[in-house]
Amino acid sequence: MATPFHTRLLAEIERKGTCLCLGLDLDPGRDSPLHDSTLASLREAAESIVEATWTQVAAYKLNFAFFERHGPDGYAWLAELAAFIGDRALIIGDGKRGDIGNSARHYAEAIFGVLGMDAATVQPIMGHDSIAPFIADPAKGAFVLCLTSNPGADDFQRHPPGEPFFMRVAAWAQSANRQKNIGLVVGATRPDDLDRIRKVAPDLPFLMPGVGAQGGDLEAALSAGRPAAPVLIAVSRGILYAGDGSLTNITGAVADYNTAIRAARR
Amino acid sequence: MATPFHTRLLAEIERKGTCLCLGLDLDPGRDSPLHDSTLASLREAAESIVEATWTQVAAYKLNFAFFERHGPDGYAWLAELAAFIGDRALIIGDGKRGDIGNSARHYAEAIFGVLGMDAATVQPIMGHDSIAPFIADPAKGAFVLCLTSNPGADDFQRHPPGEPFFMRVAAWAQSANRQKNIGLVVGATRPDDLDRIRKVAPDLPFLMPGVGAQGGDLEAALSAGRPAAPVLIAVSRGILYAGDGSLTNITGAVADYNTAIRAARR
Repeated sequence: MATPFHTRLLAEIERKGTCLCLGLDLDPGRDSPLHDSTLASLREAAESIVEATWTQVAAYKLNFAFFERHGPDGYAWLAELAAFIGDRALIIGDGKRGDIGNSARHYAEAIFGVLGMDAATVQPIMGHDSIAPFIADPAKGAFVLCLTSNPGADDFQRHPPGEPFFMRVAAWAQSANRQKNIGLVVGATRPDDLDRIRKVAPDLPFLMPGVGAQGGDLEAALSAGRPAAPVLIAVSRGILYAGDGSLTNITGAVADYNTAIRAARR
Repeated sequence: MATPFHTRLLAEIERKGTCLCLGLDLDPGRDSPLHDSTLASLREAAESIVEATWTQVAAYKLNFAFFERHGPDGYAWLAELAAFIGDRALIIGDGKRGDIGNSARHYAEAIFGVLGMDAATVQPIMGHDSIAPFIADPAKGAFVLCLTSNPGADDFQRHPPGEPFFMRVAAWAQSANRQKNIGLVVGATRPDDLDRIRKVAPDLPFLMPGVGAQGGDLEAALSAGRPAAPVLIAVSRGILYAGDGSLTNITGAVADYNTAIRAARR
């Protein structure tokens, strides 16, 4: 039987000694000594960053938007980069896909089968049959969007106030976690919500963006971790464009995050 | 000033004399005289179908899942097919994307800028700032996922019973429609819900899958149309695999749908 995704995640965190997840969101509009706005230099920069960081991160998060904006060549880059990472770290395909059964099956095939990624972020709104194809293989994980940290999160996720949407998603995901391969995407900015979610979803790993450039609280985020249900601290800009954006500053930022993560764990 | 998407949609429906939208969901696992399971034959089949049908449809819907399942070559096919359709009909990029501001901007650039599509389907859950990039250009449209027709729609969309999520989405979309370029995705299977949505969203076009192979009621769907807020009847399998799946049967099925649409409009 396949090793469940949760077990694979815990093993990788143990192997690397950190729950840091680096988002490879390279932005052609940013100043960086590693890249200009051309796809060729972005490709090279991404590989240099992986070479320099893979021993110090548990996972890479590839946000499909940053690849698709370059058109078909960008999608080819996504596949190439996933292959380049290989088994040096877990790969989270951050495409936030969501569609009905037949289409969802194709998306799962694209992310797990064709691109060979280890986990995917998925939309909850169409319900169980839209998520089923992403959790059919115990070895592959699905992080279901639960609560994000952007201003628009108030429009729908936090409504109605009594039993908000995000709590319903969390409870559903906990109940659907029969193969130990479901997690939640939880923004790292509001510790009180984090506690509420953890209460109804005690067995689910959290993928937590919002620490770093978006200004969350690392210690509060880490405190949501449990021995069998860890948090993944997802940082992108806060590492990729740390200091002058050089590899020295990138690896320095990774080391700083890891020091802070290990200090908080003690 | 750019012509708003709603105006462009009405003009195309007028020009073609139909609100039929053909979903080009070619399935390599289906028997068809037009294609086998290879990408080369799917590409040829799609172009033959466009050549044979474009004068009789208002729009084509390209569901990204059916392209991404083929990997980078499939994504290249998506771009190629959009260019092939060109301005022969409107092109709806059915990617159901949803992410926070920065990523949403990249997705909008991918669908409207790089792929040159006319409208996109988008996820509502992250709220206004996740949708803003898709409605920034009045000429480009965003169909917001409101209510789908799959079994999982009951899990979240129809909750809580009093003021369900889908009604909140509909009301929000109506209020955000300042540039006349927002529509709703509404499954065609439950006429009573259709009435409720139309009441709070009187100015929004509906993109309606679920007629055809999924077994909805064409007349009920059409009755939701308004002079300035039409419905688009989205049919995929019910046309692409009609009869023996030959071009003759495909164009015959398109003609049958158009006859039924025109009869219902009288």
